[in-house]
Amino acid sequence: SVNPDLASERQTASFSVEKLTALLDGGAEQTRMRRAVVEAIESDPVFSRENQYFQTQNERYEAAVRKAVHLQKKMHEMGWTENGPEYKYIYRALSGDVAFLLHRIFMRSISVLGSDKQIAKWIPLATQHKLIGSYAQTELGHGTYLQGLETTAVFDTATQEFILNTPKISAMKWWPGDMGRSATHTVVFAQLYIHGKCYGIHPFIVQIRSLQDHSLCPGITAGDIGPKMNFEHTDNGYLLLKNVRVPRENMLSKFCEVRPDGTYVRQGSQKINYFTMTSVRISLISDEVLTPLMKACTIAIRYSVVRRQSKLKPGEQEAKILDYQTQQEKLLPQLAAAYAFHFSNDYLQELFNRGYREIQKKNFDMLPELHALSSGFKAVITQHCTAGVEICLRACGGHGYSLLSGLPSLYTKILASCIYEGENTILLLQTARFLIKCFMAASAGQPVPPSVTYLAAVKHGKCPAKNKLDFLSPDIYTEAYQHVAVRLTSSTAAKLQDLIQSGVKKHDAWNQCTVQLVQAAKAHCHYIAVKNFAETVEKLETKAGIQKIMKHLCDLFALHGIFSNTGAFLHDGYTSAAQMDMVTASYLDLLAVIRKDAVPLVDAFDFTDQSLNSALGSYDGQVYQRLYEWAQKSPTNQMSPAYERYLKPLLHNTLSKL
Amino acid sequence: SVNPDLASERQTASFSVEKLTALLDGGAEQTRMRRAVVEAIESDPVFSRENQYFQTQNERYEAAVRKAVHLQKKMHEMGWTENGPEYKYIYRALSGDVAFLLHRIFMRSISVLGSDKQIAKWIPLATQHKLIGSYAQTELGHGTYLQGLETTAVFDTATQEFILNTPKISAMKWWPGDMGRSATHTVVFAQLYIHGKCYGIHPFIVQIRSLQDHSLCPGITAGDIGPKMNFEHTDNGYLLLKNVRVPRENMLSKFCEVRPDGTYVRQGSQKINYFTMTSVRISLISDEVLTPLMKACTIAIRYSVVRRQSKLKPGEQEAKILDYQTQQEKLLPQLAAAYAFHFSNDYLQELFNRGYREIQKKNFDMLPELHALSSGFKAVITQHCTAGVEICLRACGGHGYSLLSGLPSLYTKILASCIYEGENTILLLQTARFLIKCFMAASAGQPVPPSVTYLAAVKHGKCPAKNKLDFLSPDIYTEAYQHVAVRLTSSTAAKLQDLIQSGVKKHDAWNQCTVQLVQAAKAHCHYIAVKNFAETVEKLETKAGIQKIMKHLCDLFALHGIFSNTGAFLHDGYTSAAQMDMVTASYLDLLAVIRKDAVPLVDAFDFTDQSLNSALGSYDGQVYQRLYEWAQKSPTNQMSPAYERYLKPLLHNTLSKL
Repeated sequence: SVNPDLASERQTASFSVEKLTALLDGGAEQTRMRRAVVEAIESDPVFSRENQYFQTQNERYEAAVRKAVHLQKKMHEMGWTENGPEYKYIYRALSGDVAFLLHRIFMRSISVLGSDKQIAKWIPLATQHKLIGSYAQTELGHGTYLQGLETTAVFDTATQEFILNTPKISAMKWWPGDMGRSATHTVVFAQLYIHGKCYGIHPFIVQIRSLQDHSLCPGITAGDIGPKMNFEHTDNGYLLLKNVRVPRENMLSKFCEVRPDGTYVRQGSQKINYFTMTSVRISLISDEVLTPLMKACTIAIRYSVVRRQSKLKPGEQEAKILDYQTQQEKLLPQLAAAYAFHFSNDYLQELFNRGYREIQKKNFDMLPELHALSSGFKAVITQHCTAGVEICLRACGGHGYSLLSGLPSLYTKILASCIYEGENTILLLQTARFLIKCFMAASAGQPVPPSVTYLAAVKHGKCPAKNKLDFLSPDIYTEAYQHVAVRLTSSTAAKLQDLIQSGVKKHDAWNQCTVQLVQAAKAHCHYIAVKNFAETVEKLETKAGIQKIMKHLCDLFALHGIFSNTGAFLHDGYTSAAQMDMVTASYLDLLAVIRKDAVPLVDAFDFTDQSLNSALGSYDGQVYQRLYEWAQKSPTNQMSPAYERYLKPLLHNTLSKL
Repeated sequence: SVNPDLASERQTASFSVEKLTALLDGGAEQTRMRRAVVEAIESDPVFSRENQYFQTQNERYEAAVRKAVHLQKKMHEMGWTENGPEYKYIYRALSGDVAFLLHRIFMRSISVLGSDKQIAKWIPLATQHKLIGSYAQTELGHGTYLQGLETTAVFDTATQEFILNTPKISAMKWWPGDMGRSATHTVVFAQLYIHGKCYGIHPFIVQIRSLQDHSLCPGITAGDIGPKMNFEHTDNGYLLLKNVRVPRENMLSKFCEVRPDGTYVRQGSQKINYFTMTSVRISLISDEVLTPLMKACTIAIRYSVVRRQSKLKPGEQEAKILDYQTQQEKLLPQLAAAYAFHFSNDYLQELFNRGYREIQKKNFDMLPELHALSSGFKAVITQHCTAGVEICLRACGGHGYSLLSGLPSLYTKILASCIYEGENTILLLQTARFLIKCFMAASAGQPVPPSVTYLAAVKHGKCPAKNKLDFLSPDIYTEAYQHVAVRLTSSTAAKLQDLIQSGVKKHDAWNQCTVQLVQAAKAHCHYIAVKNFAETVEKLETKAGIQKIMKHLCDLFALHGIFSNTGAFLHDGYTSAAQMDMVTASYLDLLAVIRKDAVPLVDAFDFTDQSLNSALGSYDGQVYQRLYEWAQKSPTNQMSPAYERYLKPLLHNTLSKL
């Protein structure tokens, strides 16, 4: 039975929840297919997530391997394939709690970087799981800066082999997933040396464990890097190589080859590599970043209409905490951001697909823009969503802090997304480099990619809003965001030029501008996100209340951004103080409007109880009962040796004998 | 041997690290005593924190109990007492990783709320550990709002007993520490009923476990609430009472008594209770909030001079990451905040001591101010420091995400401080209520407490700064902070009045202003923190470079606050855009100045390697070696059954037989 405090929230939805779900899925047919996958996965007890919060790292790893192996059977049984339309729903249905994800990256790297011969040899072995692959790039002392990697691969013409070594401790491979305990093979990135000359970083397929008994191969030291904030199910590993020899054929050689005599041959374009990183950054947004935020919103908002605390009006019942303005101000902007970034993701996907089609025609023109946008959005979305999940967690008070709420593990997992696949600050600086370049080009009248043409139009106008309702006009707020992005880019470009002209060396000048460059890059992405959301809303069907509620969310997303960052808009007087007060008024008004639809808006995300795995967020809102039931199953409620060993002697005053 | 990249940082300190440590400790004698305690604790293997990151919740609990019991012996051996000067250093030396902290609260509540007779009976039993106490206030469905608690205690005149019950699931006691597995007794807060009439919340001593065999007493259901984000060492518990009878003498009766015939007598002032909460909020700041931030700064800053990544100048060695402006901008403001809030804490302690002396003279005049400041500062400091620890964690990239860095557990622990002892938003609203009241009084010419007299002086001036160096003048920035605090308070007071005058009911009007009230409360505390830091710096001795570096940190703290919140200062034109650019310039200049002393500034916190328990932050900076050594000890490097069960069948293609 549904908690009446939750049930009442669903009766007043201003829109069709089912229609909104279909919109998010990309059509009713997609919704149907997704639900079928979820049903098949969740009805299979091997994939259960019960008791997950009680498991040790070892138990989590074992469960993930068990699930990965079982998934092979399941896919066969269901007729699902890795390239089939259902595949993307499987990972979501498993909440990522499965092993061998790096095995897929291993395969992808061979497909992209390997010669046809290498692909023909390795891909079937990997597909049939005759080996388990990993991807060993990051080192203990080297992450972002690939040129700095220290692992070496020296070509030995005598034996036609590469000799791989870890010359010092900072060169150990560190972090690769599936490598700590599972993998038999890995792609090692190492500095290639031929006849004493260094040719830079190249990828080599290296076997690390026996296919017979899984023992480490000669010269290999490998293991698990130990406990982390999350990803207990993944065996992130370390790898130390000592004179490990691999045949010449094991260097992935689509782009570079070493001939038997040691001649180094570079062939083809490496630009596609660039594109691979872009593809990974975009693809992680949906599963690793948006889904956790949507789950956190679902949990925190459902809980906030079930939890009653203090009185809003004297003499009445205690109030639902979502009726407090401060609680609305915590949660509803996160909900708006989840929708906003869902549509940003659609935008990036579309751009990516267009880029991919162009690349197939050997046209690489879109790459810089795509790289800048995917880098910037990866950083902005992961940062924003991580902060959002933390807000949801804290907004649930003590119960949010219990692992049983599901919020801590959502937080600790999403946090990693700010670090992996490009540390956010570094990514934003790449976006900024692109912006500065385009700004200079645009200022010089040269053509620039579509997403940055606005940089050419430096206007010194004022925001035309006359009352608070004007700030519900997308034109008004989109223009304001655009103005800020232009101002931050142009002023930082000017500072950079001033510094260089005053004699500061280029790299020093750049470093002295980086704090402001990061601000410019964020403003650019924020502008694009707002503009895209507004344009998306305009195109929505007006029926079933969908467009209206999405318009409210778009307004909230935009006004929250202004309200939280008023200085950027006030700085040069584009927005006046009086206008800022209008923004505040409209923003606070919107909270009360969206609050009414808050539960239907999270229901539309369509998470099952099993996928939420939260005592606070289940569909029926039976929060207290579930917390109690789950807590009773905790291993901390088994007998502890602490009583006999320590408490009893203490209480019986035999302390002196201890 | 110390990593040369770290060693070089120490050679150029602009001040005496030892002198700064003594300043932080409150004198060289205190430093000596603290180090003696640390030495005694850390040299005892029972208190070791080795392998802590590998332990399960059960193992952590057992270790905490073992340490707590052993501590009794140790204190006896060392001649330390609970009221002695060494006591405060013991908890810090143990990093809080010890059981029975609630036993102390149990004793304190009896001392404060109990009659002389009750104190004479229970305190000796507790002191001798003939029982283990807890403190059961919070319920599954009730935290902040004490009047909402649902546990009942009905007085039975026939037997002269109170009958305690948990009428429904939301009334279960939930969260009390030491109660899940250890406690034999607890103080239960329940609604008192006599002859069918409710007299509100009262405290009752209730035995929950047998002193003979630790089994649960009749009518008691109790256990552990399960896994949390941190505090694995604490057995936070649940408690369900079913017709549990306690004698009339077990109601703590310093302020209220139930006579044998059921007559309810209220005696004395309860204002002191108010004072107890204040005392707890202030006392937690140092150990639970500042220490974690100082540790996080130590770890992240030491790591940032050892970690080299990318090149700052072409052709040179890879740069220390602390040489990047963006890294400085992440870490150095956190360092400045740690110092700023250390001095805020001194200020609060002093105010508290003064208040305590007054109360002993039966003068309660200081209570409202003390309550408002302790609530506001508890919220602002916990929030700021939690964000700071998270920034430190993320600034260490992947290695920060490993538990072995120590940063994740600092984060997950400090996060709780935003929730316990008063949820931050609610505390800020209490501060805001005080501010509005004082603002109204001040506007009407009535006297107000010293910390808020500034509210009377609403000035509409402009910031007088003429160049970026002017923003290094404490008068200039303190005045700016004051201006913002007055503006936010007065504008919100005006909004509140407007709403009420326009017919909105008082409680609705209040709710509609709460987002802005929270802003005003934060601005007030931030202003006091800046002002206090500036005043503290002025009084420091000028020798040994201490005053100079503290002045830099004070400037950084103040300017970072303006830089991060420019809108508040720009809003009414108090600060112009040109002045804001000066702030930015001065702020960025300061980063480069303080960067030179960053390592000495964290060395002055004087944490031992054992208390940091971090592979990244040790004094010698041997980061990579330690990460590798520690990882090898992880239980995830033991044989896993996953190979035989799942991997082998998969690899040997016996999948179909699974």
